[in-house]
Amino acid sequence: MLYDLIIIGGGPAGITAGIYAARQKINTLLITKGFGGQIALKAVNIENWPGIKEISGLDLTKQFEQHLKKYEVLVEMDEVRKVEKINDKFSVHTVNKNTFEGKTVILASGADPRPLEIPGEKEFLGKGVSYCTVCDAAMFSKKTVAVIGGGNAGFEGAIALARWAEKVYILEYGEKVSADLENQEKAEESGKIEVIKNVQVKNIRGDKFVNSLIYLDRKTDKESSLAVKGVFIEIGRQPATSFVKGLVEFNEKDEIKVNPFSGETSTPGLFAAGDADNVPYKQIVVAAGEGCKAALSVYGYLQKSGQNNKNK
Amino acid sequence: MLYDLIIIGGGPAGITAGIYAARQKINTLLITKGFGGQIALKAVNIENWPGIKEISGLDLTKQFEQHLKKYEVLVEMDEVRKVEKINDKFSVHTVNKNTFEGKTVILASGADPRPLEIPGEKEFLGKGVSYCTVCDAAMFSKKTVAVIGGGNAGFEGAIALARWAEKVYILEYGEKVSADLENQEKAEESGKIEVIKNVQVKNIRGDKFVNSLIYLDRKTDKESSLAVKGVFIEIGRQPATSFVKGLVEFNEKDEIKVNPFSGETSTPGLFAAGDADNVPYKQIVVAAGEGCKAALSVYGYLQKSGQNNKNK
Repeated sequence: MLYDLIIIGGGPAGITAGIYAARQKINTLLITKGFGGQIALKAVNIENWPGIKEISGLDLTKQFEQHLKKYEVLVEMDEVRKVEKINDKFSVHTVNKNTFEGKTVILASGADPRPLEIPGEKEFLGKGVSYCTVCDAAMFSKKTVAVIGGGNAGFEGAIALARWAEKVYILEYGEKVSADLENQEKAEESGKIEVIKNVQVKNIRGDKFVNSLIYLDRKTDKESSLAVKGVFIEIGRQPATSFVKGLVEFNEKDEIKVNPFSGETSTPGLFAAGDADNVPYKQIVVAAGEGCKAALSVYGYLQKSGQNNKNK
Repeated sequence: MLYDLIIIGGGPAGITAGIYAARQKINTLLITKGFGGQIALKAVNIENWPGIKEISGLDLTKQFEQHLKKYEVLVEMDEVRKVEKINDKFSVHTVNKNTFEGKTVILASGADPRPLEIPGEKEFLGKGVSYCTVCDAAMFSKKTVAVIGGGNAGFEGAIALARWAEKVYILEYGEKVSADLENQEKAEESGKIEVIKNVQVKNIRGDKFVNSLIYLDRKTDKESSLAVKGVFIEIGRQPATSFVKGLVEFNEKDEIKVNPFSGETSTPGLFAAGDADNVPYKQIVVAAGEGCKAALSVYGYLQKSGQNNKNK
């Protein structure tokens, strides 16, 4: 079976691309590990999806998924391992050892949490170390925890944790946090969140479970210890693009370079949308808009190559 | 009063920009003739706003408007006549003779219907000639009408008209219609819609009201007459950008040229989003995504210029 289009990813970009492709009667397969992408892991309710004042990540995911399933888009729950282009066709290989073939591909694989890469991080993963507040916050009822990273994700994680935890530290590497003012205010209102700046986390320690972390004060060069039962790492995301290395041009952040008018990449027939690409604003509505553009560009691409075939 | 940001337009781009600006605590004024932009005039239900299987244009407009009004965004119901930039400040002049001043502007003024510019069009406007199916369809119960234009807007207009009218002609200038396959199928299913291609409409005729139109068959060069009581003109949109002529760079379609990564225009402090700009896909979700980008770019621009002021 040769699909007209294979969409890789089931977040806002992939789902929107799927809806638009289906409405153009493009024969489409969507491959994803799960629906919603980063939305499904959001620590706080979403208030910036236009038209909905407030909704949980899971509920918005459900709405997106139901919208997609209104159409005849085949969905394969699997993870992509590698994409190759051979003679104008794309071969998409999955972890479950399937191979799917498509005339075009939209990469909407989003981004994964970036690790700190310090001692203790891997050992205590699932034993106090977490990359997902929404998954794990409830385990830290009345405990003290630390969130590493002072961006929006860090603050939102801390705000969600503050509903359960007794005390939440936000540890920020720089002189300033980069979270929205609204998130900063909410953190202050919680009364439980303390921000420590100029911090480099060196080490996560524990016994069976985490019990402390060691950090360096980057101004005084002094090392300190914080007694915490949980460490939530929110230092950003890295694009989930390793499976197309060598096939398409990346920027220095491993984001796929696109023409932001169309979603085209350096490889004809290969399009990208959402957090895997180099459009700077990583927002749900931006990803959805890019997904729409990519699907409509695929339609144009298929129309053109169809005509070419006829002319031969 | 010097606003941080003036948003011109209350469609998906302007409203999304407003929501994002408010969440960044940017002191914002939004000026619009009315909410919803082209959505509010949609002839058929909207099925491609991600997360909602089907909704009327008016209901989606209401949801967007209510979301915006959750925040402290000042709204002025007025039409913009001219925008000037004087000494790093923008002056926005309105039809109601108000002038508002802003440090930055987001142009999200969308697009207006493009006229045919043929005899009879102006004379019979409101007397059988219309640019808005959703507004006027019900007036043509059991009558024969023509829709000029075979794009999505033309087909959607014809589908909506077919609920009332006895017969609907779609007159297409080219050899092929450009509407989505889904729209073409719906038109066929209606059993009331007839598409005539290679048609140049020359003249709209009538007495007090429209009673016919004259067209040229572009293949045979013969002129024919169609007895119709209504003529709906759907030959595309033109960007509503005349009020910034001379202030910013346009393309050949009078669309404002933007950097599609950021919404920046050729004029510092002036941003654009939605159908007024040169992003090719004129879709609700694309416009919303661009509105988000523009607002976040405004935030960056204000932060930077604030720091510059402090350094002086």
